[in-house]
Formats: sequence, structure tokens, C-alpha cells
Amino acid sequence: MTPSATLAAPLAPEQELQVGEVLFEAGGMGPVWQLQTGALRLDRVSREGPRFMQLVLPGDLLGLELLAAYPYAYTARALVPSRAVARQPVTEAERRLILVEGLAQQQRRIEDLVALRTGPAQDRLKHLLLLLVPADMPWSGTVAELALPTLKDMAAILDTAPETVSRIFANLRRTQILDTRQRQSASFSLARLREVEWPTGMTRSDGLLRQPQAPEAA
Amino acid sequence: MTPSATLAAPLAPEQELQVGEVLFEAGGMGPVWQLQTGALRLDRVSREGPRFMQLVLPGDLLGLELLAAYPYAYTARALVPSRAVARQPVTEAERRLILVEGLAQQQRRIEDLVALRTGPAQDRLKHLLLLLVPADMPWSGTVAELALPTLKDMAAILDTAPETVSRIFANLRRTQILDTRQRQSASFSLARLREVEWPTGMTRSDGLLRQPQAPEAA
Repeated sequence: MTPSATLAAPLAPEQELQVGEVLFEAGGMGPVWQLQTGALRLDRVSREGPRFMQLVLPGDLLGLELLAAYPYAYTARALVPSRAVARQPVTEAERRLILVEGLAQQQRRIEDLVALRTGPAQDRLKHLLLLLVPADMPWSGTVAELALPTLKDMAAILDTAPETVSRIFANLRRTQILDTRQRQSASFSLARLREVEWPTGMTRSDGLLRQPQAPEAA
Repeated sequence: MTPSATLAAPLAPEQELQVGEVLFEAGGMGPVWQLQTGALRLDRVSREGPRFMQLVLPGDLLGLELLAAYPYAYTARALVPSRAVARQPVTEAERRLILVEGLAQQQRRIEDLVALRTGPAQDRLKHLLLLLVPADMPWSGTVAELALPTLKDMAAILDTAPETVSRIFANLRRTQILDTRQRQSASFSLARLREVEWPTGMTRSDGLLRQPQAPEAA
């Protein structure tokens, strides 16, 4: 965990976000933010309503378009309880560093996006769950508690129906990867979850997991 | 069209690419490139072979990681006949401009990626075809000739089977949006293609287009 700035410090405003809370709205102006903990979704807002565009994970910078004097391109909303801190580059070197950092992050997020949108829905959901695991969570065989986005949010990120997400969770419970699921969190065996995803070949041969998802296979 | 640099100019090397030709390989070093015409795919190369990561369209910068002294992260391969030119920023201001430009482009490509991976396969293919239309092609009702990626490339970009892409092309022909399709190009009524995509509601009510794709609807 990064050391949290004190709330009183005027140069590094911090923002705590509850599930569904908005950090900034598309079209607004403000600072560049960096996510400390949690996860956000960036949405393009159009006549048809918000549309999922990107997942933001701890360490990621948000609103880099502000460095080019453009307003925020997307609305940023918390998927789970999150904390963000404002990043205020002063010197030209700092601004350049932030841009280079931002580009490298964009590349990682593009790779994640491809993984979240490739193959059967269950593989995509497992990838999402692994992305949501905080970096400081132990990877040993013990069961870990994970804050979960709503079914609706997970379905939007994976481009599937909330019912499909719900069905996959039922499968995870049946195969003892998932221990319990509450409304906004779940207990997982991270080691087992990781196993069934990696390598992909293992998932394919797992009849129990695969069976109910057949119509969605690519 | 941008005015093409003469091949003799030592400061702006230009590269003409045939379908399938590689501009640079992951892990290599070289200049930052800018695509002038055509379309490329960026692939992450792993043990399991190349995996589609990103579409590159005219105007897009490639290999910005080189500005941070990293090797190329992906392999760049031509989907259609293409031309790229090396961009060699000299001053710090030029480098910063390229970074800002690159970030804005990444954002557009992320939006495209979401569209190429959201909804039924036919909507995704139509989005891909519209992305491949050169900017100088007239949007009037006349039929336009469009260079096409291979079925295999289109399937990889859309995360579907080549047979599915082939089936959608058959539907497009039946509904007279597609005139003819050769191995590497097709004649389209761009106006009609645009119409069936925008707004989405029109596609949904088109029984002919929809029917054979039902199992792939989200």
C-alpha cells in the first residue's frame, strides 16, 4: 500500500469513493488523479446513456487529457470502495514522466481489455476477478475476501448478461473456487481460481466449468 | 492523402508494406512510426503464438515505448497494403507533442476496441469495415472499393470464427450492401453500410441480417 496523504495537505487532495460514487464527470475540468486502492470504470456518456470504456486499477492515472487542456473525456465511477489522490505535476520533466507513465499504463489496460473481451464468458470473468485482487493479498491456498463490483457492472465490463455472470458464480461455487458470495464481496481460493485460468488448457478440460457456457464459446 | 516523402530523404524513411508484411518485431529497437495509409495489427507474441492486441489506422503513431528507451512491445503487421513513415522527434517539445498525440490516439483506439468487441458479430464486423474506409473515400451512395484483411485477420480482431465472418459477408451480399468480394477487397455501398449500423435500432429490426446471427447475440 502507498502511504496515504493526510486529508489536510492542500497539494495532494485525496478522495474516498463508495461503490457507484463518481470521481469526475465527462466534460468537467480538474486535476489528474491516480488510483490508490479499489477499481473504477470509465464511461463514455452519450444519448443512450453511459457506456463502459475502460477499467482503472491501482496505480493508474486518470484524466491525462487535462495535461493537454482538454476536459475529462469520460466519467469515472467506483466499482468497489476506492481511494484516489490528485497528481499535480509542476515541472516540465514531471509532466513528461506522467505522460510516459500514462502511455505504458494505457498499453497494459488495452491488453486487459482484450482479455476481458476474448473467449468464453467464464474465462473473461476469471480474468476480471484476478485483476481485482489487491497486490498485497497473499496468493497462498487460503481463502481471501474480495470486494466485488455489482453484477450489472461486471456484465457491462465483460459484454455479457448479468444472468450469465450470476450463472458462472454458481459454477465457481459448485467447483469450490468460490466460498461464499455476498452482495458486494466474495471469498475465493485465489490459488484455485488462478489454476483454472492458467494455462487455458486446464479450463477447456474442466467439464463442470465448461458445460453450461457452451453457447458462448467463440 | 498526405504528400509522400521521397524515398531518398534520409530523415524520413518510408516503408511500403504488402499484406502480411511486418513493420517491426516485438523486442526490436527502431524509430517511432506513423501510419500514412492502410491498416496494421499489433500482436503480443507469446509461446502460444501471436495474439491480436490493437488495430492501427492512418495517422496513428507506433512504437511510442521507444521514446522511453524500451524495445517495441508488439509485432506490427500489415492487414492491407499500407505505408508508414518514421517520426523522429528532435526537441523536447516535439517529444512531448508526440506523447500527447499518442495518448489521444490510444484513447480512440480503446473506444474502437470496445466497439469491435461489443454486441453481435455482425455489428462488430460492420464497425471494422467502417474503420477501414480511407478518409478520402466519398460517402455518397456510389459503390466503393475497399481493401480487406484476410478472413483470419478479421476473425482475430473480432474474436470470432473465420466461418462467422464469411457468413456475415454472405448476408451483406444478400442485402445488397456488399457488391462483390474478392480475396483481398470488396465493393461496398458505404451509405448503406453506414445506415444499417447507425442507429443500432435499424439493425435489430432487419430480419434478414439478424436471423443467422442469433446464437451470437449477447
